Amino acid sequence: MSKQTVTPSILPGFMELLPSDQLLFNKMLDTIRSTYETYGFVPLDTPTIEKSEILLAKSGGETEKQIYRFNKGDNDLSLRFDLTVPLARYVAQRYNDLTFPFRRYHIGKVFRGERPQKGRFREFYQCDIDIIGNENLSIINDAEILSVIYSTFKALGFDEFTIRINNRKVLNGFFESLGITEKADVLRTVDKLEKIGEGAVTEELKALGLKDEAVEKILKFIKLKGSDAEILQSLRDMRVENELFQLGLEELNKVSEYIRYFGIPEKNHGIDLTIARGLDYYTGTIYETILDKYPSIGSVCSGGRYDNLAQNYTEKKLPGVGISIGLTRLFYQLREAGILAAEKKATPTKLLIIPMKGTMDFALDFSTKARQAGIPTEVYLNEGKMGKMFGYADKLGIPYVVVVGEDEIANGQLKLKDMDTGEQNVMTVAEMIEKIRSVK
Amino acid sequence: MSKQTVTPSILPGFMELLPSDQLLFNKMLDTIRSTYETYGFVPLDTPTIEKSEILLAKSGGETEKQIYRFNKGDNDLSLRFDLTVPLARYVAQRYNDLTFPFRRYHIGKVFRGERPQKGRFREFYQCDIDIIGNENLSIINDAEILSVIYSTFKALGFDEFTIRINNRKVLNGFFESLGITEKADVLRTVDKLEKIGEGAVTEELKALGLKDEAVEKILKFIKLKGSDAEILQSLRDMRVENELFQLGLEELNKVSEYIRYFGIPEKNHGIDLTIARGLDYYTGTIYETILDKYPSIGSVCSGGRYDNLAQNYTEKKLPGVGISIGLTRLFYQLREAGILAAEKKATPTKLLIIPMKGTMDFALDFSTKARQAGIPTEVYLNEGKMGKMFGYADKLGIPYVVVVGEDEIANGQLKLKDMDTGEQNVMTVAEMIEKIRSVK
Repeated sequence: MSKQTVTPSILPGFMELLPSDQLLFNKMLDTIRSTYETYGFVPLDTPTIEKSEILLAKSGGETEKQIYRFNKGDNDLSLRFDLTVPLARYVAQRYNDLTFPFRRYHIGKVFRGERPQKGRFREFYQCDIDIIGNENLSIINDAEILSVIYSTFKALGFDEFTIRINNRKVLNGFFESLGITEKADVLRTVDKLEKIGEGAVTEELKALGLKDEAVEKILKFIKLKGSDAEILQSLRDMRVENELFQLGLEELNKVSEYIRYFGIPEKNHGIDLTIARGLDYYTGTIYETILDKYPSIGSVCSGGRYDNLAQNYTEKKLPGVGISIGLTRLFYQLREAGILAAEKKATPTKLLIIPMKGTMDFALDFSTKARQAGIPTEVYLNEGKMGKMFGYADKLGIPYVVVVGEDEIANGQLKLKDMDTGEQNVMTVAEMIEKIRSVK
Repeated sequence: MSKQTVTPSILPGFMELLPSDQLLFNKMLDTIRSTYETYGFVPLDTPTIEKSEILLAKSGGETEKQIYRFNKGDNDLSLRFDLTVPLARYVAQRYNDLTFPFRRYHIGKVFRGERPQKGRFREFYQCDIDIIGNENLSIINDAEILSVIYSTFKALGFDEFTIRINNRKVLNGFFESLGITEKADVLRTVDKLEKIGEGAVTEELKALGLKDEAVEKILKFIKLKGSDAEILQSLRDMRVENELFQLGLEELNKVSEYIRYFGIPEKNHGIDLTIARGLDYYTGTIYETILDKYPSIGSVCSGGRYDNLAQNYTEKKLPGVGISIGLTRLFYQLREAGILAAEKKATPTKLLIIPMKGTMDFALDFSTKARQAGIPTEVYLNEGKMGKMFGYADKLGIPYVVVVGEDEIANGQLKLKDMDTGEQNVMTVAEMIEKIRSVK
């Protein structure tokens, strides 16, 4: 009887990795996680499935279209499309059990049924941190968030990246001073400067009904360049008579000042008046992070300050500041750009023990000792020729192999083979464990 | 204008934890993960959403009813309901890219739309390992899996637990020898012995149409007790004339023999002929793990050997052996049983630095040094009275607090407060970092 089989495949727009890539991906995930924890952020995990009325409390056109929504029994359910809405719901729901400022990180998958296209995923990891205050939250937190971004990308092995900051109040205040009412549209247009260029931005601004003079002023404004001190001075010199602008200028000044205390090198951050962030709930500091050599990748870590996290779920005023790293997309892009070196390693195993006839008990006992010393260890448990066993170690990128024979056991002298160099060294079990443990 | 708010809540049957419990949960998850890795299992991550035709290739009544299935565009989609079916699909799909035996672990959420009831969850973590062979896989792997279970529960802090093993061939061969054709029903009934008792099992077996003599023999068989050696001898003494039975007996004998080589204490394992496991794809060794003092929790880690992992997706013969820990349920039950001590700790932070007026730069610099030494550190960045700041440390269970004033900086002598003992010790920044780093 021949069985009918279904061709194994996954849906387009979903990332699935082979072991070597998965190890690389997890290493990045772990690095982000441990960096977040050194800043005292507490992990959170919320359900993947929530009530649609909760996730769509603040509905927007794009969200409604992209969300995975379905019924089961009488329930109208949705898969979370970000980690911010669940955070808002969580903080509102658990308000009395939490201590504020509430510092949480959340690393988890979110789901968006977008049209599949290169580098866009329907299921992807977000790595978020947020600091939520009760009624108020000092501006120094905005500088600390920048320090977390810096430490995270340094820990990920990057050196040449720039964290750009701006302030929504500065932008909105400036636009107000020009008599512009449709600030959101102007923000979105300004945000595209890097992508579409000055000419196109000019056209778009004019198309929004702005007068030539206003467009000119906006372009001059967003093109202000220099050190933080220079840009701040230029902004002061503009003498914009708008309260919001002045408030934002004060905030930007403070954040810039505190960044120095956190010891972040000048080359890794700077005020950039062109960044605006699309999301309309940001109300103060905003962040973007650019890999200097790969600006086309776009921002790899973004976020900002908001006045009111959970207004859809509570009357409590909960201001906060946070950022997000879209790790699935970042991983994909780093690989596409050739930044991620292809890893040969396809296992965590550091030591493969190959037992010859009659030595299984010794080999297994050895493996237990090695594991207790923290060394990921395998014993080759299956039958096969020696070549096949070494081939196994080679294909998986296991760095050390030891063949255990009865003679070697009798002598107490085993040969450890370094698979990279081919070198073989005779040593005792204890010496091997010591050696492998000392190797990164 | 008063805004309309939606009452924040989650769906029944979904677990969501407060920070202190989440830290405990993650600690268990990390322990499982690192134990799996010391055995050389490679992490895998598959999409949460797959094609329904893939996940339901081998459909069963219960699965069809429980699965979260929905349409998006033209796609018929489902959320994975276990990690085994995605593994089968993965191995069949990536067959040419994998090295066999393929050892993978997968820790992730799965989804089952069950009727909500106490201790049952619709979204829960499974922590699976499997070893997949190509065409064949040595029986020694079955002993190794038992060693992984042992190491995992030891690492989780358990001491009194028993890993019970049995063999499906022994069971099926024995039933065959009695002329029973509907083995699956008998297996399911036998599996309930502990739950429903001998009387009820007798009734159910009779209801299945078994003769009194067969029922009596089955009961006598499953009640065989003693050491592994004793049980194996009793089985041999039964002289069952059935090839499958004898094959299973041989396997059980080997597994029991190799377990000794792995150094697993006698008290933590044993053959138990009553365990049968519901799933019908097991064909050899089967495992259950019982917490000795809390047998009512049932098996906390189960699994077994199967002949053919991916028969729905490939003609290749892929035998394997694996286990699963249902961590969400286990966590819930440990807490219900009072086994998990309530943790006060609601943050990873070990050190809280409280800056007095004019010392923010020093405090932030100190925090950077502490973090670089691997100490999760927070600076209290917000305004408030001293009492509130210490209250923050106290509520979160932060073990050390240091108040930084201008005098202390001038002297180079800061006071570190141990929040548990109330003790204060004067030391330098370097001494503090050294002390906190040395504390677990």
